[in-house]
Amino acid sequence: MNEKIRVAVVGYGNIGRYTLQALQVAPDFEIVGIVRRCASGEQPVELANYKVVDDIDKLGKVDVAILATPSRKVEETAVPILRKGIATVDSFDIHTGIVDLRRVLNKEAQAAGTVSIISAGWDPGTDSVVRTLLLAMAPKGLTYTNFGPGMSMGHTVAVKAIDGVKAALSVTIPVGTGLHRRMVYVELKDGADFAKVENAIKTDPYFVHDETHVQQVPCVDDVIDMGHGVNLTRKGVSGTTQNQLFEFNMRINNPALTAQVLVSAARAAVLQKPGCYTLPEIPLIDLLYGEREDLIRQLV
Amino acid sequence: MNEKIRVAVVGYGNIGRYTLQALQVAPDFEIVGIVRRCASGEQPVELANYKVVDDIDKLGKVDVAILATPSRKVEETAVPILRKGIATVDSFDIHTGIVDLRRVLNKEAQAAGTVSIISAGWDPGTDSVVRTLLLAMAPKGLTYTNFGPGMSMGHTVAVKAIDGVKAALSVTIPVGTGLHRRMVYVELKDGADFAKVENAIKTDPYFVHDETHVQQVPCVDDVIDMGHGVNLTRKGVSGTTQNQLFEFNMRINNPALTAQVLVSAARAAVLQKPGCYTLPEIPLIDLLYGEREDLIRQLV
Repeated sequence: MNEKIRVAVVGYGNIGRYTLQALQVAPDFEIVGIVRRCASGEQPVELANYKVVDDIDKLGKVDVAILATPSRKVEETAVPILRKGIATVDSFDIHTGIVDLRRVLNKEAQAAGTVSIISAGWDPGTDSVVRTLLLAMAPKGLTYTNFGPGMSMGHTVAVKAIDGVKAALSVTIPVGTGLHRRMVYVELKDGADFAKVENAIKTDPYFVHDETHVQQVPCVDDVIDMGHGVNLTRKGVSGTTQNQLFEFNMRINNPALTAQVLVSAARAAVLQKPGCYTLPEIPLIDLLYGEREDLIRQLV
Repeated sequence: MNEKIRVAVVGYGNIGRYTLQALQVAPDFEIVGIVRRCASGEQPVELANYKVVDDIDKLGKVDVAILATPSRKVEETAVPILRKGIATVDSFDIHTGIVDLRRVLNKEAQAAGTVSIISAGWDPGTDSVVRTLLLAMAPKGLTYTNFGPGMSMGHTVAVKAIDGVKAALSVTIPVGTGLHRRMVYVELKDGADFAKVENAIKTDPYFVHDETHVQQVPCVDDVIDMGHGVNLTRKGVSGTTQNQLFEFNMRINNPALTAQVLVSAARAAVLQKPGCYTLPEIPLIDLLYGEREDLIRQLV
């Protein structure tokens, strides 16, 4: 068997925690350590057996770094790591920024002779793979990606940034044909004016185009659940044959799935030629552990 | 703009007809001709504007040949074409024979510096891609592929090949958890023995593992409908998180989808390095027509 893939986890929030769990049960990875800013402080008990450092250089040889950082930090985190010749994998989820990020990291990865796989979560990520596959199966037609019900991380962060908000939860409710209702639950700071907060949310760019309902709750933590879902449909034309119907559904723990996709992508990263890739650009079989012919026998 | 892909269709049964339709509406192919044994006889009206030949050599330069032949003829059809340096694409659907076929054609394709994409229909084919993706998303768990109700082309062709069978239809009925009943309708040649035909069907590798019922009917054509369906499910574990639920459904015209996948795979064939591939082994984006960054912007 090949040597294990030496992997580092960069960032240790929600996604970082689930990434560590997924790596622990993957047979082909050696976890060389966790990179976090607060490496000198007290660490969570589950990190007791791992090296926790503030600089990836302190981990020795690393083949691939899984970036469990916020999307807006991905580029600045990835570039110096790629320049060390270490592959990176991230779940960058700002859809409008993917092409630009890919250009920047492609240049860096090629210059350093290494690989970056970006937007390797579930949307963008595995949903993107499904959308690509359905377009190949029915080139004409309409695809709708319906999210939820489930917690939207981006929308929740946007609400938290509003003046007077102590804690928040934004839940995405699918209303069909790719449209969504936003159910926002807020816990207010002392003296904050609910009507003002409600108005700020409804006029925020994140919410202004969607039907949005804001409710005040005494404790946001009591209503948080990290389950999420997708219903992705395509009705289209194969050749000249109409009415080809496709549907992909999932009901999942959101950070657990994102972390698992990151780990699978880390496995694929060490197999690609230098450059930056999104998931539809890599052979899916590279995401899997196992001998190629065994996988083909089992899956194809 | 790149030059068009010069494509030949080899075989002109059901899949061949739908393949021609899909090629006609694809913007990036030039149909150089149809290869069929009965090239000298009268041809269907829709072939009036195409070269119909009995030997692919008579078509001049061909980049890729789409093999619209029965699965059992794929190897003997593909090998001489690959040896001419022409890429091949097929929808070989005998699951237990895929690894062996891939070995043979891989050797041939590499020796000739060309490409073969095999089993590029919907199962094996696009379903294989979905199964691969779901395994990457939840490495532990169970996947069930439930087919139908619908006409199985492969099974129908297998029945037609049996001595004494004039016309046939094999319908797949899902009974859940990946198990299927086969309902076979046969029209016999004069003097054929039904019991013999029934036994030949039930002991055929296509049928031997499934509950199979064979019925004699006066006219198979009266009961044929080429719609088909799949319900593919996985319940599994992402990292250490249980109960991740996934489902892929489709209701489709069977030969139309197979043909479209063949055409998409033909597009990908000219982009791969020499060798033989199944669909999970190629980047899915290669199946699509269009500029890479535009596709990423649209799909990822």
